[in-house]
Amino acid sequence: MPRLKNDTFLRALLREPVPYTPLWLMRQAGRYLPEYNATRARAGSFLGLCKSPAYATEVTMQPLARYALDAAIVFSDILTVPDAMGLGLYFAEGEGPRFERPLREEWEIANLTVPDLSELRYVFDAVAECRRSLDGLVPLIGFSGSPFTLACYMIDGRGGEGFPRTKAMLYARPDLLHRILEINARAIVPYLNAQIEAGAQAVMVFDTWGGLLSTAAYHEFSLRYLKQVVAGLHRNHDGARVPSILFTKGGGQWLEAMAEVGADALGVDWMTDLTVARARVGSRVALQGNLDPAVLGADADAVKRETARVLESFGKGSGHVFNLGHGIDRHTPPENVTILVDTVHELSARYH
Amino acid sequence: MPRLKNDTFLRALLREPVPYTPLWLMRQAGRYLPEYNATRARAGSFLGLCKSPAYATEVTMQPLARYALDAAIVFSDILTVPDAMGLGLYFAEGEGPRFERPLREEWEIANLTVPDLSELRYVFDAVAECRRSLDGLVPLIGFSGSPFTLACYMIDGRGGEGFPRTKAMLYARPDLLHRILEINARAIVPYLNAQIEAGAQAVMVFDTWGGLLSTAAYHEFSLRYLKQVVAGLHRNHDGARVPSILFTKGGGQWLEAMAEVGADALGVDWMTDLTVARARVGSRVALQGNLDPAVLGADADAVKRETARVLESFGKGSGHVFNLGHGIDRHTPPENVTILVDTVHELSARYH
Repeated sequence: MPRLKNDTFLRALLREPVPYTPLWLMRQAGRYLPEYNATRARAGSFLGLCKSPAYATEVTMQPLARYALDAAIVFSDILTVPDAMGLGLYFAEGEGPRFERPLREEWEIANLTVPDLSELRYVFDAVAECRRSLDGLVPLIGFSGSPFTLACYMIDGRGGEGFPRTKAMLYARPDLLHRILEINARAIVPYLNAQIEAGAQAVMVFDTWGGLLSTAAYHEFSLRYLKQVVAGLHRNHDGARVPSILFTKGGGQWLEAMAEVGADALGVDWMTDLTVARARVGSRVALQGNLDPAVLGADADAVKRETARVLESFGKGSGHVFNLGHGIDRHTPPENVTILVDTVHELSARYH
Repeated sequence: MPRLKNDTFLRALLREPVPYTPLWLMRQAGRYLPEYNATRARAGSFLGLCKSPAYATEVTMQPLARYALDAAIVFSDILTVPDAMGLGLYFAEGEGPRFERPLREEWEIANLTVPDLSELRYVFDAVAECRRSLDGLVPLIGFSGSPFTLACYMIDGRGGEGFPRTKAMLYARPDLLHRILEINARAIVPYLNAQIEAGAQAVMVFDTWGGLLSTAAYHEFSLRYLKQVVAGLHRNHDGARVPSILFTKGGGQWLEAMAEVGADALGVDWMTDLTVARARVGSRVALQGNLDPAVLGADADAVKRETARVLESFGKGSGHVFNLGHGIDRHTPPENVTILVDTVHELSARYH
């Protein structure tokens, strides 16, 4: 493997000194980029992109050609693991992800098993091909949905309504939900480790829906399994530390507990103030975030002003990876991302 | 006016001693009740219900006939004020509220004015008629949306997509958003005071979407105007204190700041732990909440267990009004509400 030319992102995750604050953007390869839409049209669909290592690599590299980002993230979906379990992931036009065969009956849950990794080969191939294409430019991130977030879609079959079936199971049949979560955690660990073995230099777990839970339920049904996942991850590969990042959207109230899980960094949404977040987690973890994605829908002055505010809210020292507080919006003007990237690189040096 | 037979709710809001924890449910007059659906069918529409004091009173009273609730809330909508400003509130079938004429042009914002209270007469008439029908059974709550939450719908015209136009205005033209918020606050104060004069014995401000803001933006665009509203409210009427309740859904991280606004109580969503919330606000305010509405979609055992957990999380002493952490879901089985109400009344005595 070629030597990494820019390790700022990895160093910031490990709270080592860096010359400036590194940044990448959740969903940086996405529909706001015309070149992404062109590739997607050729691939035929979102899943066509995900399942073709060549297309996945092509779109993974697109934002790096435009912007001086400090990390790449393999193009994939958070729901690949339940798809490999046989639930039938699909995307209705203009809608979020859905499963053809959600878990509706108790026997379906009893029959659920950890999928064979060969079913997810296309992801590992994409990771390997992205890593080759990057040629040491910046580090590559692998990822998965969290055990709880996977369960939400596996049980309800779709998002958009607050996952009422998942919630009903949580309260009425917690034993069934625990079985699903246990299997998910046992599937995610080898899935992320296989991404690391294929070339991912950091991994991120997206707990997109953990923030819908009560504090007690978050601890019992999400955090507990996040801990199990993190405990099973390779900490080193190929002579290098492989940092891990946990992100619970809407989890700002639980940062102290999340900092105890053992991950190197926590993603922070835009509702949480980074000054407060940093004071609460201390030196236990790095923080990644947290510009409101809506800022990129405003004008250049707003992008500069709000970017400066996020940098200032974290303050001096290492341990900050700049990002949005959620995925980039599809209506984002690409030129506003240029301003964001330039502003982070220009203004952040003074904090280091 | 007849003497109030049950003032537990008002006393708990003022943190005075009570024999048990009072409760009511956000959206307690709603689609989960077959009798509500029957009245709505006769009225022809949701707005038909709101705008007819007779129908509004009928549905306000329905949950009280079924359940031993400790408060009534006048049947109305959070968006009556911008409707009175001429924006044209309507409800598409199966959708949330929308405005026919959202604020799209700068001149429309320049022309916006505080509406004449005569345009909202139907609300004050409904309050007065509800108060007469209650005949002292329990206190009556009046309410409004918050300045920021009204602005979200006034600018975007509808919910469901995170209010991108509102967010873009907030970041690119904060001056325009401040003008709208200022007018909203100046409209809400006399609107709530007129409800108090018509018979509302407590008032609540619903900041349903304040939780979408960054911490800095929440302070500047929501909390500041909540403070302005609370400062203008009648504190007493007809010889009695009129307590006020603020509720920012998703605002759990900002409870300390909210406690400084001057309201008597804060609504708390189900994501926030009441033990933590109480420690943070101290004795400055009472707390209202916070059962996950999804619990009512589970079974009787779950309703009892989770209700007990909420009571225990607040703990001993006055200053707790039991409620859900959000409006009751339309699919709630009415018999689960019976279990909830009975459980709160049975189990809560030991905390007082």
